[in-house]
Amino acid sequence: MKILNIGMIGFGTVGTGVYKVLQSFKNINIKKIAVKNINKKRNVENFDEKLLTSDAYEIVNNPEIDIVVEVSGGTDPTYDLLKTAINNGKHIVTANKELLAKKGSELFKLAQEKNVVILYEAAVAGGIPIIMPIKTILCANKLTKIAGILNGTTNYILTKMAEKDLSYETALKQAQELGYAETDPTGDVKGFDAAYKIAILASISFNKKIDINKIYKEGITKITEQDIKSAKELGYRIKLIALAQMSDKGEVDVRVHPMLVSKKHLLAKVNNATNSVMISGYPVGDLAFTGPGAGSEPTSSSVAGDILVLASELEASDKPIPLYVRNQTEIANQIDISETYNEYYISVTASNNPGAIGVAGTICGNNNINISTIMQKGINEDNTAEIVVITERSKESDVQNALKELLNTDCIKKINNLLRVMN
Amino acid sequence: MKILNIGMIGFGTVGTGVYKVLQSFKNINIKKIAVKNINKKRNVENFDEKLLTSDAYEIVNNPEIDIVVEVSGGTDPTYDLLKTAINNGKHIVTANKELLAKKGSELFKLAQEKNVVILYEAAVAGGIPIIMPIKTILCANKLTKIAGILNGTTNYILTKMAEKDLSYETALKQAQELGYAETDPTGDVKGFDAAYKIAILASISFNKKIDINKIYKEGITKITEQDIKSAKELGYRIKLIALAQMSDKGEVDVRVHPMLVSKKHLLAKVNNATNSVMISGYPVGDLAFTGPGAGSEPTSSSVAGDILVLASELEASDKPIPLYVRNQTEIANQIDISETYNEYYISVTASNNPGAIGVAGTICGNNNINISTIMQKGINEDNTAEIVVITERSKESDVQNALKELLNTDCIKKINNLLRVMN
Repeated sequence: MKILNIGMIGFGTVGTGVYKVLQSFKNINIKKIAVKNINKKRNVENFDEKLLTSDAYEIVNNPEIDIVVEVSGGTDPTYDLLKTAINNGKHIVTANKELLAKKGSELFKLAQEKNVVILYEAAVAGGIPIIMPIKTILCANKLTKIAGILNGTTNYILTKMAEKDLSYETALKQAQELGYAETDPTGDVKGFDAAYKIAILASISFNKKIDINKIYKEGITKITEQDIKSAKELGYRIKLIALAQMSDKGEVDVRVHPMLVSKKHLLAKVNNATNSVMISGYPVGDLAFTGPGAGSEPTSSSVAGDILVLASELEASDKPIPLYVRNQTEIANQIDISETYNEYYISVTASNNPGAIGVAGTICGNNNINISTIMQKGINEDNTAEIVVITERSKESDVQNALKELLNTDCIKKINNLLRVMN
Repeated sequence: MKILNIGMIGFGTVGTGVYKVLQSFKNINIKKIAVKNINKKRNVENFDEKLLTSDAYEIVNNPEIDIVVEVSGGTDPTYDLLKTAINNGKHIVTANKELLAKKGSELFKLAQEKNVVILYEAAVAGGIPIIMPIKTILCANKLTKIAGILNGTTNYILTKMAEKDLSYETALKQAQELGYAETDPTGDVKGFDAAYKIAILASISFNKKIDINKIYKEGITKITEQDIKSAKELGYRIKLIALAQMSDKGEVDVRVHPMLVSKKHLLAKVNNATNSVMISGYPVGDLAFTGPGAGSEPTSSSVAGDILVLASELEASDKPIPLYVRNQTEIANQIDISETYNEYYISVTASNNPGAIGVAGTICGNNNINISTIMQKGINEDNTAEIVVITERSKESDVQNALKELLNTDCIKKINNLLRVMN
């Protein structure tokens, strides 16, 4: 049995979880752990504090270390640390979605040159096995679509808003109190976290480089109680969906935004902090992977899984495993959201006059938008009314034009929200 | 690039699907295909009929063939063919659940001796990646429970019974007409197919040998329209569930039977021919894998996936990959269903007299059975009534005793059905 020496960067929630899980595997030896504060009390039984160092370069430059496990997050100094580790011939296991989404292609290229592998199951969807299935058992497929709930915080907030008729602000506050949302929730609620994850999934599914800056991102901060209520009445739930699609022509459409999801759709039934990833391709058809998307224990399952798979492979051969070294060389032809086609939910406040719906209908028609459902919700005190419309499949740029024209009429007072729809 | 020569046994729905998918992979060369009837017209474009042979031993004894792909089914002569192939140093990819459930441990032992691997992703749940995730990325976990809908035919029949208020016989007939059920549906509707699959999943999840003969099997043939209706009224759907659990004491409980599944449970929402596998373990928590469980295309995704993974591994090393060679040496301590604890749905026909419920309640109480829900459904013309009971968690042997005692009373005329419940 080959014993592998592990150097770990980071020893927070995930790091301590990984440490605990790996204790029972005799072929894995945790040699060194880099932390910011070496004097902090660690909640780990029988822990030898001599393992700790405050200098992460001590790990990436240590010739005895075979695998660097990075669970510290961020890009600085992590990017430089991992580059140094790869240059020193070490394999990498990381949970760092931001680093991979921003600097993945540089790291994968370097890893290929240096004959090492980078595994990162924990970077997407926590404990759900998704990266390794795509890279291994699904590799005969041409994958064309991924649609997922990839952020547990926002799914928790949206679930509570729907279950308990809470406003976004109240639901966020409760999520923060319960530890489901961070004090600064920006990364989650504005869609950054989900964007990193869908960028990673799209890059391995389509085998192309994805530019994170070209991903359209819209968070959940503008979802109102009224939107949730209208969606319910129309047979939908509102979810933050990360989407990646590749057309026959090779156009790649990657984006993150809230969607009305038909209550019959599997993703509508994924609640609280649970994540779910749907993958479609040929010949497999449609698959869904559901489970815990975050937390110490599920994430440590994925980090430890990567380490043990790597250990098993290195037991058989010193060469890197071709399937795991997928260095995307081709740049994806990412299209702008304005070029995409979607069904839409449009909520407007209209003046209560008999012509309003006619005017709105004409503007929609002139912009090639067919309306499939229209619902007027009572009349307000100021003699306005909320009108909610679901459109047939229309082009985003046409819808944006129609909204501008609607606002220029007398009868439409306000666009309350525009959301896309998944049936 | 290493070119691998494939010999395929069987060229039916799955075999032709695999053939088509593999055409685009230049490192895979299909060298020979064994079929029963060499003169049958094949529905494959540009197919070279010279690939065909009617003698499968020509494949397993051919020194040029690296991987034998077995998609013919059954155990005779397949068991002998695969033993010969392994003895000749060939790797195996198979979709044969029956063979693996009955003869897997012999084959795995031989494969280990001969330094070859047997991959079988397609044997369980068609296109859903489940075998490889359990063996690779989830290998840090202690898995304790699997609950799945593993048979598409019965799920299709139960779905149609529920949606369209059909009897079992009518739904079966429609499923046969649409190709969802075979002319002789025994293997599916009596639970054999699901039992093979759960045996395979349990053996790799718990890493123990499972005796297929010790698996309790109950099919769906006794489910009535009335059961489906009562279940619905109580907030449940009826599904054929394959279950495998391992207790802290190492007792292994593997069985297949219909269950009332709470409509809030993910498995209750898996309809038609779709399959779903839920896996629970530490540290990962609860995962669910959902997708197409059968059919040419999904199944060929898994068979081709196994072949391509094997090709990729063999590109890096001639040695077998330790993770894939898991030869279970320990025999599972399988317990009988009489020793298991479950919640129950009991439907009885009782005489319409005021004492009936009291008598039934006393018998249940004497057998340590607490009732959580009781529902009486009108009064029949013959002055009897159907009474449906949901119990709290009780021991199977206690419930069986109570049913015998109930039948000995004057007030219980008939036990209509006994089903187990999943909340």
